Amino acid sequence: MDYELTLTKTLRRAVDQFGDKEIVTKLDDGGYHRYTYSDAYERICQLAHALDDYGLDHGDRVSVMATNHYRHYELYYGPSCSGRSIHMTNHRLPDEHLTTIIDEAEDRVLFFDEAFLDTVERIAPELETVEQYVVLDESVPETDLDSVTDYESFIAGYETEYEWPDLDEDTECGICYTSGTTGLPKGASYSHRGLFLLSMNYGAKDTFGITEKDVILPVVPMFHVNGWCLPYSGTFYGSSFVLPGKHTDLEAVEAMIREQNVTVAAAVPTIWTDMANYIDEHPEADISTLDRILTGGSSPPPAVMRRFYEEFDAPIIQGYGMTEASPHLVNTLLTEKVRNLPEEKQYELQTKPGLPVPGAEIRLRNEKGEPVEHDGESNGEIQVRSPWVIDEYFARPEATAESFTDDGWFKTGDIGTIDEYGYLDVVDRVDDIIKSGGEWISSVELENEVVAHEKVVEAVVIGVEHDRWQERPVVYVNTNDDVSEGELKNHLLDRFPKWWLPDEFIFTDDIPQTSTGKYDKKILRSLFRDRYGSLPLENETAQ
Amino acid sequence: MDYELTLTKTLRRAVDQFGDKEIVTKLDDGGYHRYTYSDAYERICQLAHALDDYGLDHGDRVSVMATNHYRHYELYYGPSCSGRSIHMTNHRLPDEHLTTIIDEAEDRVLFFDEAFLDTVERIAPELETVEQYVVLDESVPETDLDSVTDYESFIAGYETEYEWPDLDEDTECGICYTSGTTGLPKGASYSHRGLFLLSMNYGAKDTFGITEKDVILPVVPMFHVNGWCLPYSGTFYGSSFVLPGKHTDLEAVEAMIREQNVTVAAAVPTIWTDMANYIDEHPEADISTLDRILTGGSSPPPAVMRRFYEEFDAPIIQGYGMTEASPHLVNTLLTEKVRNLPEEKQYELQTKPGLPVPGAEIRLRNEKGEPVEHDGESNGEIQVRSPWVIDEYFARPEATAESFTDDGWFKTGDIGTIDEYGYLDVVDRVDDIIKSGGEWISSVELENEVVAHEKVVEAVVIGVEHDRWQERPVVYVNTNDDVSEGELKNHLLDRFPKWWLPDEFIFTDDIPQTSTGKYDKKILRSLFRDRYGSLPLENETAQ
Repeated sequence: MDYELTLTKTLRRAVDQFGDKEIVTKLDDGGYHRYTYSDAYERICQLAHALDDYGLDHGDRVSVMATNHYRHYELYYGPSCSGRSIHMTNHRLPDEHLTTIIDEAEDRVLFFDEAFLDTVERIAPELETVEQYVVLDESVPETDLDSVTDYESFIAGYETEYEWPDLDEDTECGICYTSGTTGLPKGASYSHRGLFLLSMNYGAKDTFGITEKDVILPVVPMFHVNGWCLPYSGTFYGSSFVLPGKHTDLEAVEAMIREQNVTVAAAVPTIWTDMANYIDEHPEADISTLDRILTGGSSPPPAVMRRFYEEFDAPIIQGYGMTEASPHLVNTLLTEKVRNLPEEKQYELQTKPGLPVPGAEIRLRNEKGEPVEHDGESNGEIQVRSPWVIDEYFARPEATAESFTDDGWFKTGDIGTIDEYGYLDVVDRVDDIIKSGGEWISSVELENEVVAHEKVVEAVVIGVEHDRWQERPVVYVNTNDDVSEGELKNHLLDRFPKWWLPDEFIFTDDIPQTSTGKYDKKILRSLFRDRYGSLPLENETAQ
Repeated sequence: MDYELTLTKTLRRAVDQFGDKEIVTKLDDGGYHRYTYSDAYERICQLAHALDDYGLDHGDRVSVMATNHYRHYELYYGPSCSGRSIHMTNHRLPDEHLTTIIDEAEDRVLFFDEAFLDTVERIAPELETVEQYVVLDESVPETDLDSVTDYESFIAGYETEYEWPDLDEDTECGICYTSGTTGLPKGASYSHRGLFLLSMNYGAKDTFGITEKDVILPVVPMFHVNGWCLPYSGTFYGSSFVLPGKHTDLEAVEAMIREQNVTVAAAVPTIWTDMANYIDEHPEADISTLDRILTGGSSPPPAVMRRFYEEFDAPIIQGYGMTEASPHLVNTLLTEKVRNLPEEKQYELQTKPGLPVPGAEIRLRNEKGEPVEHDGESNGEIQVRSPWVIDEYFARPEATAESFTDDGWFKTGDIGTIDEYGYLDVVDRVDDIIKSGGEWISSVELENEVVAHEKVVEAVVIGVEHDRWQERPVVYVNTNDDVSEGELKNHLLDRFPKWWLPDEFIFTDDIPQTSTGKYDKKILRSLFRDRYGSLPLENETAQ
């Protein structure tokens, strides 16, 4: 049967079967905004009518710059299901990146939170395609912007039913841009088909097992790669939602979990590390309704994984993915075989991203494009394919040409290993691995071991040009107590050969980050080069 | 990304990620045949080479007439993944149906179990397209068949790797025929895409939650609508399998569950009713590894559902589907809302098939094609759509024209209701509902209530022509103890108005069934007409 896999169908399922499930938003006054899928649906229909009336054509895009709240949720469906596309923008991007991507995507309407008014006012004069600004609120604050209205006025008065078009499943439903750690952001355009399939997949017991009984708290921003696809998946399965608005501090997150009986929460690993500490300091804190936690971007420390598993009975499921993959490809799955291993080994394996989910495929290729052994040691570039992986960068033929193999796999730029259990581990970025005298040193493995030292809070390892060895590692370290370079070196020697040890230890409490909170190794490399040149340094120490 | 959803990818996932999981087959000598996905894969590759070598073109079909065993499993993948199609045939069909469908599907090779040699020998002279017979064994028994070989010889000596073609996801992977209760069997052709999606869906926690940890025992025949798609889904998720061969009696099923730690078993409701009794009579029986049970075709009695839920801790999940839907569309899901109801109400609701799974849609339409209220009472024809529902009958334009609406929904021919919880119930077949004086009487509801009487084993209600009321109900009853017509009438009056009561009660222990074990109402109607004509009967009682 020619049945197109569209987001419209996933939304209709929520409304028809779970119409009274709630979408709850944390408000700035401390209370909650609550409404149901049926309520949301009526407003999504109104939004679609408003876009028709505004004159937005099929295929046109709207920008959204917002925290996680119910109006943002409505924007996940109104434009896409009516044949347009949502461009989720990250307000933390540098202004020049924001203007570049909004112009490149030719966004015609920009929806934004009042909190980001300054940013919007700064970039507005440079924007070439945006004709209309819509504040995601009930009124418009004082502003110099032209053509501005508020969201409630924008959708007011329209019909609460809508005749959705029969879209081809390959139609674009949204676009996100990479955060641009290696150059200008690049656009990843998503199809209805891709997000339908990934959303369905999240319901699999061996993936995240999203069900209608779940109450999902996406702490991860909804602008960050489809909010890790959770808003789409939870809707498909009829889950309830708790949307934090701008309230993503630990106290607020704990309160939302407790007050709204949250079962699934999703956030970067640091939130969970901090939450474990927060609970120690706040005996009244209660996250007992949590059933499982989704995280990604990097590995949480094993001790934290273990604590959530054993003490809080809420396993942390780690995912691996990327903007180009909608984002999810791989996640922790304790297979039968792994469950039969000693407990310590199981926890060790849980720090790896794990196994590809159904519908996603991964492979490792060395520099010559040859397959790499699955022995947990040999490494190669991680290449992927899936219906929810892009097949080109939007309007960037050169970047596209560099990023796909001849046989159609996406080259992630990540270096990984696969072990005998089939578990993928990400050991580095192609750009970050350190080529020292013909051998490779993983910056990520070094970082993890430095951070494992009790006095270290953060560590970032970069490769620096070396006159003799081509490249050598240098580490930036942020500590919470006095610790000497010698102490850290001894710590590292427990695990690595001597030639892996960083040539320089630079102590600092100000490690630069990108707009999505990753350490900015590009900046660090450039800072180092500007300040010191190459290795070996002439002065004894770089500090 | 242009990533075709093919069974080849699901098979590769099992081999790459779960290559050492086992497929276990019960043998006739009482032992088990055991091998892994990796082993199976090598033989599937050999089979594909053998089909190449035989000269089978892409798109050609092979017939398979077999019980559930590992060679049958290999036939699920070898032909389909190499671009051919498997026609699963039901050996219980009448000979003339078998010859009709094998000729219509133009099957060129017929694989069959030695147990069905007689059938094959009988139909062989009539078959116009079959060129080669392959016995699913190590040798060929004495036979008059021409061009016959055994499976092991057929695949022997070929390479154990195969370069699978890049198939379009809409390529046919298999075909099944309806069992023909209402005329000649009709062919339902399945695409790789449809079975990929349904297989993925079975992993959803809210569907069946198939995982790699499961050990799946399909008692349901693998020729019966893709073995309810379990072989495909379990492979996708890397589950283990226990295949019963011809050993589907209670004693054998219980032994396989106990000996192989089966977690998921699938069979028609009568097996589970009988299993509950079997356990009472055999204190040493042990089905404690069972985690959940899949059933379909009709509702198990509520008392049995309850017993499995409470006593055996293995909920019976009831599905609704059909040959035309691969087959699965709807299953029991105790939603949050339902779990808050009184326990009795929950069990009552569990006797209904339940909610459509993600990717499947159902609607009810009355005789004028208008929507029907979702009040649990109003009924209409169940119409469905999904990527795994067919959009035509193979080579039957007239049947196709009758079976689809103008807007592309499949008309199931079932009459259903949907209640306030969204639960679908199937109350009758369009052909079986009894039109009495302008009102409808559900034959299924009457049957269920008659069977609910403790002295009744089976009951089938048919509509019979009536001189005044157009149609009136007549019931065929099989009892396990003396029970009078008056006693049954009183029993029915507890629940139904007087005009629903059957005009005739015919006591018999020989109710005719179709080849798939359904009661054959077509035969019953014809038997009644031949014997008695129309109602009211001239003689006082029909018996």
